[in-house]
Amino acid sequence: MKRAQYERRGPVPQDVIEAVEFQTPPLAAGQVLIEVLAAPINPSDVLTLTGDYGLLPPLPAVGGNEGVGRVAELGPEVTQLKLGQTVLLPIQGGSWATHMVGTAKHLVPLPDGADPKQLAMITINPPTALLMLSDIVALEPGDWVIQNAANSAVGTYLIQLAKARGLRTINVVRRESAVEAVQAAGADVVLVDGEDLGKRAREAAQKAPIKLGIDAVGGLATQHVAQALGEGGVVVNYGAMSGEACQISPASFVFRDVSLRGFWLSRWFQQAAPARRAQVFGEIAQRVAAGELHARVQATYPLERIKDAVAAAAAGERDGKILILPNGEV
Amino acid sequence: MKRAQYERRGPVPQDVIEAVEFQTPPLAAGQVLIEVLAAPINPSDVLTLTGDYGLLPPLPAVGGNEGVGRVAELGPEVTQLKLGQTVLLPIQGGSWATHMVGTAKHLVPLPDGADPKQLAMITINPPTALLMLSDIVALEPGDWVIQNAANSAVGTYLIQLAKARGLRTINVVRRESAVEAVQAAGADVVLVDGEDLGKRAREAAQKAPIKLGIDAVGGLATQHVAQALGEGGVVVNYGAMSGEACQISPASFVFRDVSLRGFWLSRWFQQAAPARRAQVFGEIAQRVAAGELHARVQATYPLERIKDAVAAAAAGERDGKILILPNGEV
Repeated sequence: MKRAQYERRGPVPQDVIEAVEFQTPPLAAGQVLIEVLAAPINPSDVLTLTGDYGLLPPLPAVGGNEGVGRVAELGPEVTQLKLGQTVLLPIQGGSWATHMVGTAKHLVPLPDGADPKQLAMITINPPTALLMLSDIVALEPGDWVIQNAANSAVGTYLIQLAKARGLRTINVVRRESAVEAVQAAGADVVLVDGEDLGKRAREAAQKAPIKLGIDAVGGLATQHVAQALGEGGVVVNYGAMSGEACQISPASFVFRDVSLRGFWLSRWFQQAAPARRAQVFGEIAQRVAAGELHARVQATYPLERIKDAVAAAAAGERDGKILILPNGEV
Repeated sequence: MKRAQYERRGPVPQDVIEAVEFQTPPLAAGQVLIEVLAAPINPSDVLTLTGDYGLLPPLPAVGGNEGVGRVAELGPEVTQLKLGQTVLLPIQGGSWATHMVGTAKHLVPLPDGADPKQLAMITINPPTALLMLSDIVALEPGDWVIQNAANSAVGTYLIQLAKARGLRTINVVRRESAVEAVQAAGADVVLVDGEDLGKRAREAAQKAPIKLGIDAVGGLATQHVAQALGEGGVVVNYGAMSGEACQISPASFVFRDVSLRGFWLSRWFQQAAPARRAQVFGEIAQRVAAGELHARVQATYPLERIKDAVAAAAAGERDGKILILPNGEV
């Protein structure tokens, strides 16, 4: 058994992590051994390695916060699960590993037949997209939403979920070469970021007020999104791909009553009622299994190449998620 | 009769305005002639001259948006007011003038014996301070609030109104030389802005979470105020003294659930119920007449020196408001 472990944090994330041998203890009553099929590298994983994330696990730690696996061994008294069942990995972290031990009654069984790579990505990015569409401002079918980083996994899920809700999306990318992939994902409008983005976006929405702006970039990109919004619009920020602070002119805040807030899935997990969680993940699992919700995968790596995988995930300008396949091709 | 008029807008506000002769038409039924005693130059007046404000009057226009006067002549059928009564100037604008014509039934009579210079400033800055304390987040006596531009008129009113409500204020200034005046206004804590402002402010509040941050500066000053706030705190911006966009790091928004919004008195005037307006201005007029609410005056100018007065108001780094006294000393 192998897992990707780090004993310190540092500015170059691939320098601190490495694949090491380990052994799981014998299974206790109610536990199962899970063979990990696929686990993604999210931006929050990279920020956890560099020490820039809002919650940092004690060291040493194993990387990864989501993924999908298959039940490989049943401990005593396990009746809820069968050998070979596909399950969502437990959210305690440490998914970049060939094996994990989980408590059977807390594991979520997943439909057979769905692509394990797509199932591996459902815990973090799809609920982020879904909740920003539902919990920030009240939107009606036909309403417009603008987002930047539209070529990211969250951006791709957001396009698909918005379409399913009858919302129309203006999608902002930083380079012309990303336009085609975003259009293929179902975007209504794709624009390349720039100083006059606000004007071009308002024209694209044909003067219908854009109520919600979604920003994962920061810096002047936040201001460009804010300038696209109608009076009273809200910008929600969920990331800092530029590494810069969000900028918005006082004129936007004061004269146009735009406001700016953040979204953090970790807080939602702490605060959401169990029924609401079940509703959110029920919709997501169903849509992923039906093939309606999916994100692009740029490359997959075996666990032994964790340093290359983390470097690729941290590089930016990607065209899809980086996935670890710890037990080979799925 | 003279008034300060401008026929165009431009980047140097004192270049576009000048004192010109004019004549009021004969008074119609219900009108009175008002002799203007004092009228301030607010930051919004300067932004109106440069064209950077959110509402711009048609040209040509007369400067000034508030002030106090004395009834100098009664038109036919006026029964509500007597000659010599002190009144708040009508809010239609044009207060930088020796005389204005007003409709008697819309004019607010003011208590005799109060300082006309202090009464001249009550329409704009005091309600801005009062409403940011009351309408942004719920505050209890003992709660802490942080504001920058604490040496401004709004900042001074805010200190006095917060004290009257049992709130404690952390006041941020940009230079050491402003500290004493802010302390004299009743500040609980005064700090000079800097990179570690958040840390120093949290220490000053002795770990009590600061719920409200008030920003009139923009740029990195917004971020410094945000970093002082506790989880879920709100920054309200009402000005742009630095001329820069507000900056807040995504980490503040996302990990600490800080949000950022604007306050604009003009919107409040459009939306507030008459009973709420009466309550707000009732409290302000009473406190000004009682001497509990007052702002510093840096210098007064006759109308003929409007260019010097506007240049002084636009210069920044002031230690009090610039007032026009169109009919001489009051």
